[in-house]
Amino acid sequence: MAEDAPPIRFGILGCAEVARKVSRAITLSPNTTLYAVGSRSLDKATKFAASNGFPPHAKVYGSYEGVIEDPEVDAVYVPLPTSLHVQWAVLAAQKKKHLLLEKPVALNVHDLHKILEACESNGLQYMDATMWMHHPRTTQMFHFLSDPQQFGHLQSVHATSTYTASPYFLENDIRVKHGGKCPLMVLTGSVPGVKPDLDALGALGDTGWYCVRAILWASKYELPKSATALHKPTYNDAGVILACAASLSWEDDKVATFYCSFLTNVSMDIIVMGTKGSLRVHDYIIPNQEKEAKFSTSSNSNWVELSIGWAPNPSDNVVYNDLPQEVHMVKEFARLVGAIKYNNSKPEDTWPVISRKTQLVIDAVKTSIDNGLEPVEIKG
Amino acid sequence: MAEDAPPIRFGILGCAEVARKVSRAITLSPNTTLYAVGSRSLDKATKFAASNGFPPHAKVYGSYEGVIEDPEVDAVYVPLPTSLHVQWAVLAAQKKKHLLLEKPVALNVHDLHKILEACESNGLQYMDATMWMHHPRTTQMFHFLSDPQQFGHLQSVHATSTYTASPYFLENDIRVKHGGKCPLMVLTGSVPGVKPDLDALGALGDTGWYCVRAILWASKYELPKSATALHKPTYNDAGVILACAASLSWEDDKVATFYCSFLTNVSMDIIVMGTKGSLRVHDYIIPNQEKEAKFSTSSNSNWVELSIGWAPNPSDNVVYNDLPQEVHMVKEFARLVGAIKYNNSKPEDTWPVISRKTQLVIDAVKTSIDNGLEPVEIKG
Repeated sequence: MAEDAPPIRFGILGCAEVARKVSRAITLSPNTTLYAVGSRSLDKATKFAASNGFPPHAKVYGSYEGVIEDPEVDAVYVPLPTSLHVQWAVLAAQKKKHLLLEKPVALNVHDLHKILEACESNGLQYMDATMWMHHPRTTQMFHFLSDPQQFGHLQSVHATSTYTASPYFLENDIRVKHGGKCPLMVLTGSVPGVKPDLDALGALGDTGWYCVRAILWASKYELPKSATALHKPTYNDAGVILACAASLSWEDDKVATFYCSFLTNVSMDIIVMGTKGSLRVHDYIIPNQEKEAKFSTSSNSNWVELSIGWAPNPSDNVVYNDLPQEVHMVKEFARLVGAIKYNNSKPEDTWPVISRKTQLVIDAVKTSIDNGLEPVEIKG
Repeated sequence: MAEDAPPIRFGILGCAEVARKVSRAITLSPNTTLYAVGSRSLDKATKFAASNGFPPHAKVYGSYEGVIEDPEVDAVYVPLPTSLHVQWAVLAAQKKKHLLLEKPVALNVHDLHKILEACESNGLQYMDATMWMHHPRTTQMFHFLSDPQQFGHLQSVHATSTYTASPYFLENDIRVKHGGKCPLMVLTGSVPGVKPDLDALGALGDTGWYCVRAILWASKYELPKSATALHKPTYNDAGVILACAASLSWEDDKVATFYCSFLTNVSMDIIVMGTKGSLRVHDYIIPNQEKEAKFSTSSNSNWVELSIGWAPNPSDNVVYNDLPQEVHMVKEFARLVGAIKYNNSKPEDTWPVISRKTQLVIDAVKTSIDNGLEPVEIKG
């Protein structure tokens, strides 16, 4: 994409909370512009555009169709409830819109296949909106994990992704007991009054997505051979998973574990352990601060005489960040879209591949939960 | 124990590497004195006493019997190979020696019961030598975990304990392939030429002990209801476990996981997650530095507007330490021994109770490994 190429024009489907963050990112990214937003409520879309930096000439639609049928829209960002992804992502692809899809991307890999096939057959770029993948810190950490002298071979990973649901959630949780609204719909911005979809992945999809991606990332995207849920998950009365844990294992001796929850104080940990080194990060999903991010590494450590200390001690690393991670995401996505649009490039295959692997692992964990914690083979 | 009471006189059975550290601790503790050391080699014992701060009048024996039969010895510290613990600990108890027992304390809970019964029936103090339990940091962390406002209820724990075996280990590992010496014996200071004991717990006993203790500590010593090994462990050619992982679960929704290994760069992590707070420590077994130790806490955190940062951010806590943790351990053990000896107190029951729970969990993990990763019920 040439420096002077026009910016990629984004349309946004729905007015979820996270869309505010991505709208800001589209504004901040040098190669994109906010072009359209659609909601089933025109009033809601109008208010969203007015309060989220949309330029005066932006299009505001009282439907999702409006956005995907607008010929000026290059790409759509889809933060709709997960159960609606397959329908709208496929429709958008049929209208030749490149796709930035909020996570969890689908209820299962079969739905995701439909989305990916629609993108592929239409020559479109697909990317899931896993923002932390695009932070410069993530790149630096990956370099460390790729260093045979400093890190060696991967042995084990543990990842967490948790937060405590808001009082609003808990209030609605009580209402569920009386046949009311499902808390998951509150979390995902779904529609009040609609019966909760019990196939929803709950915390496994929302927060577990990050854990699974982190584990795949640390293993250089080598698909585990099996997944096992580790205990009966916590459910709410509507049968939605509120907390769960699982382990993943590979053909060799590598093993990974993760814990995800809506009921636990915010945590975002990855501990990656190799034969020669280890890496720790405690805010991988959302850095504590936007402008700088830390991680800790340890290499070839041993104990000093009498085992009364370490040598060398772990190192703290700080990565300064000129642009927020979601801006890096949007910028990279738009770069790929621009290359297709202006340079006849092919879509970058990395993103659909790792999105599919993430979904495959989540599906296996869900199956293990449903099958009484039996190990479930993961087939690529 | 009165301030002016004579110091508790320690005898040490064997000259293991770790005995050097504990000898220093006995020297540094204000209420103890190094009184005797015994080895099957008098020359080895003599050299050990000379190079580890034993006073000139200390007794040096060419046998373990010499130490436990010496009527002036109040307490013995036993760093012998695990498979020898039950024999020598019971003999020492029969000779009325209080017992500070190196971990792993026994090959299984049946052996441990024999040791604990011998101590109990002779009115003796028992303590396992899990040093980190006695660091002032551990007390501060426990206060945090006990705070219903700052931490809430426990949801999940992950613990690690790993180190990379020395080249000497690896060299011996190769020899095992040719019918030679078992690397575990190198690690535990066992006797060359003796056939490796395949019942040995390997990394599960040596490093997994710490993980299991950390998890029990974080759960306020509530015994899990089941343990499940998570993947086929790494073994050496002699069948010794070199790395393994397991999960523990309770009647409620709590879940814990751990990873232990001889093949992974040094790690000593505990991540404890509660409904309202979380705690992280990365050097719980041996602090990076002797004089100060850190841990991190996070309470009631949420994301700032647009989820572009945390509020509040996690807090770093530093605990300054006047005495090394192993000195605190020896001092507390001797305080309890002194209370029995001089004040007719009863032995403190806490230490045998938590030692037994630790062994019960380790036994369950070992059974799960041996039974093809089946969940194993833990019966108190």
